[in-house]
Order: sequence, then C-alpha cells, then structure tokens
Amino acid sequence: MNFLEERIVKDGVVKEGNVLKVDSFLNHQIDISLFDEIGREFKDRFAGRPINKILTIEASGIGIAAVAATHFGVPVVFAKKAKSINLEGEMYVAEVESFTHKTKNQVIVSKKFLSGNDRVLIIDDFLANGCALQGLIQIVQAAGAVVEGIGIAIEKGFQPGGQIIRNLGYKLESLAIVDAMDPVTGEITFR
Amino acid sequence: MNFLEERIVKDGVVKEGNVLKVDSFLNHQIDISLFDEIGREFKDRFAGRPINKILTIEASGIGIAAVAATHFGVPVVFAKKAKSINLEGEMYVAEVESFTHKTKNQVIVSKKFLSGNDRVLIIDDFLANGCALQGLIQIVQAAGAVVEGIGIAIEKGFQPGGQIIRNLGYKLESLAIVDAMDPVTGEITFR
Repeated sequence: MNFLEERIVKDGVVKEGNVLKVDSFLNHQIDISLFDEIGREFKDRFAGRPINKILTIEASGIGIAAVAATHFGVPVVFAKKAKSINLEGEMYVAEVESFTHKTKNQVIVSKKFLSGNDRVLIIDDFLANGCALQGLIQIVQAAGAVVEGIGIAIEKGFQPGGQIIRNLGYKLESLAIVDAMDPVTGEITFR
Repeated sequence: MNFLEERIVKDGVVKEGNVLKVDSFLNHQIDISLFDEIGREFKDRFAGRPINKILTIEASGIGIAAVAATHFGVPVVFAKKAKSINLEGEMYVAEVESFTHKTKNQVIVSKKFLSGNDRVLIIDDFLANGCALQGLIQIVQAAGAVVEGIGIAIEKGFQPGGQIIRNLGYKLESLAIVDAMDPVTGEITFR
C-alpha cells in the first residue's frame, strides 16, 4: 500500500451506498502534510510533461490543487459550479451531474484563464462517475488547450469514470483506486 | 504599499457597484507564489499565538488557507455552505448571507473537527459585510474553541464587516484594506 492507501485504511470510513468518508483528512478537514505528499507524488508521476497550469473544480479540489501547485510552480484555475455575479464576460460552460449531490451543475471557467497555449494538469480529490472531470476536459478542449494529465487522489474503481477516461487515451493517475468496499466489515480493497 | 496592495493595483479591476475583480490571481485563477507570500505574512502577523487549526469557508478561502497552513504546520477545516449527503452526524450550523451572491447560506462544520481544545486562526480571501466571518466565529464559539486571530487577504474598508469584528475585540489582520475605489478612473485607495 502507498501512503494514501494506508491513510484511507487508517482513517477512512465505509458507509452504505458506496460512500467512503475521508472527511477527517481530505475533504472537510485537510491534513496539509498529506496534501504536500500528494502534490509531490503528482509531480513525480507527471515528470517531463510541459505543464503550465493546473485546473480543478470547487470546492474540495482546490486545496489539493493549490498545495500541488507549490510543487509545479504554476498557477491554479478552479472551475466554478454556479454562476456568480462576479463572473462576467466570456466563459466556458459545461454541464455536469454530481454523484454526491444528485444535482446538475454548470462548470464554468472564464475564457481569460485558459487559452490555446495552455498545457493543463487536471487535479481533483475524487473520481467516481467522472461527470465533473468530463466537464473539465470539455472546457480544456473548448479552449484549444491540451490535457497533459489528470491527477486524482481517490478513484472509485467500481464506478465507470476512470475506465472511460483511460479508454479515451488520457494519462490518468489515481493515487488510490478502491475496487471494493464492505460497509459491514469496513474492509477496503485497492487495485 | 505592500506586496498584495501592489498586486491589486497592477491586476485588480474596479467595477460599478463596489466590485473589485481580482479573479486573475486570487479567486478564480490562483497565483501560488502570491498565496505563499500571503501565508508567510499571516505566519508573521500571528507569531506567538498558539494556533493549532485553520478554519476557512468554501470555496475561495480554501486555496489561501491550504497554502497558509503549510507555514503553520496545522490542519485546515473548511466550512461547507450547503448540506451534503456526505456530511452526516452532528454539525455546527450558522446561517449567513452572502454579499456577492445575495443568498442565504448555512455554514456547516462537523462537530468532529472543532473542539474545546482548538485555538483557531480563521482565514478568508475577502471581508466585506462579514456575514460569512460572523458565521465562522459563531461556530468556533459553539465548539468552545478560541479564535486566536482572523487573517483576511482583502478587506473592503468602506463596508462594515471589519469594524464590527475589531469592535468585538478580535485580532483581525487584513493584508490590504481598500477604503475607496473609483470605477471610472480605476483608482484604488488603501488605508
């Protein structure tokens, strides 16, 4: 097991309905030294790629992306999920459906912050059905930019998002892929 | 002018309706080296305070808080604005109204992540009317924890949030306090 898998076994909680609660270190309370290790690992896994921008989506992707960006030395752009009065001007918009919240959201990025010159690393905390990720990829392509890679902390391998993205030829690196979870015993099986 | 005021003058845009757009470096695209400097400055300004946790609120507070936390070596907790199916169990809830979005939100923190042992630094990107901040303070107090300080990147000094918080005796450090903005000339006056 790698450092993230070990942490999931130690502090993650498996709930009914394929829910993996990692809110004590990943997406409500944040363990910053863990995020730093995740950032370093992404930097290793995408070494040699000419990445000049990291793209993520609010809210829980922002912390991982920001700490990872300290290793890459590039700016972060985070997509917004709802139209704000401060988000004016030309925007890229993709519609996605959240697995967690059962709602449809528009994923929005200002055209000012993605262009044909950008070589983008997409980072997010979770990958399940991959709808948010598909929206981000759609936006990178709409900008004429290149997806250099996709870095995910935890992928639910029993949901189709990761496979779809790999089938499309993207370099997707998930630091922990959960293939099965048992809500009765709490056991977690990693790929 | 300090480093943040200089950046606001260089890249901020003043709009009608007391809107200061800083989305090219602060709250849509993130300049990570600027965030690192902000984090270091907070560390200096709250030196000697026994801070063991940083509290912020989604979404745009998370990046600043996460990078600042690398300087403090403490975990970050970010309050959520809407009830998620993954947020179960006992929660602290405060109701706040957003100046930007004109909507009421519930600010929510799991009781697991704030306790009477916590000495909390609250961090956010903006302070205007201070409703979100008031909600965070309310939650820290409900937990029996102590607000050791409040670090804000940009305070709109012509709105009442900052004065209210200082009147209540909190150590509030805003790295840039905007006292006036002219949407015609674009001129920004700092305190």
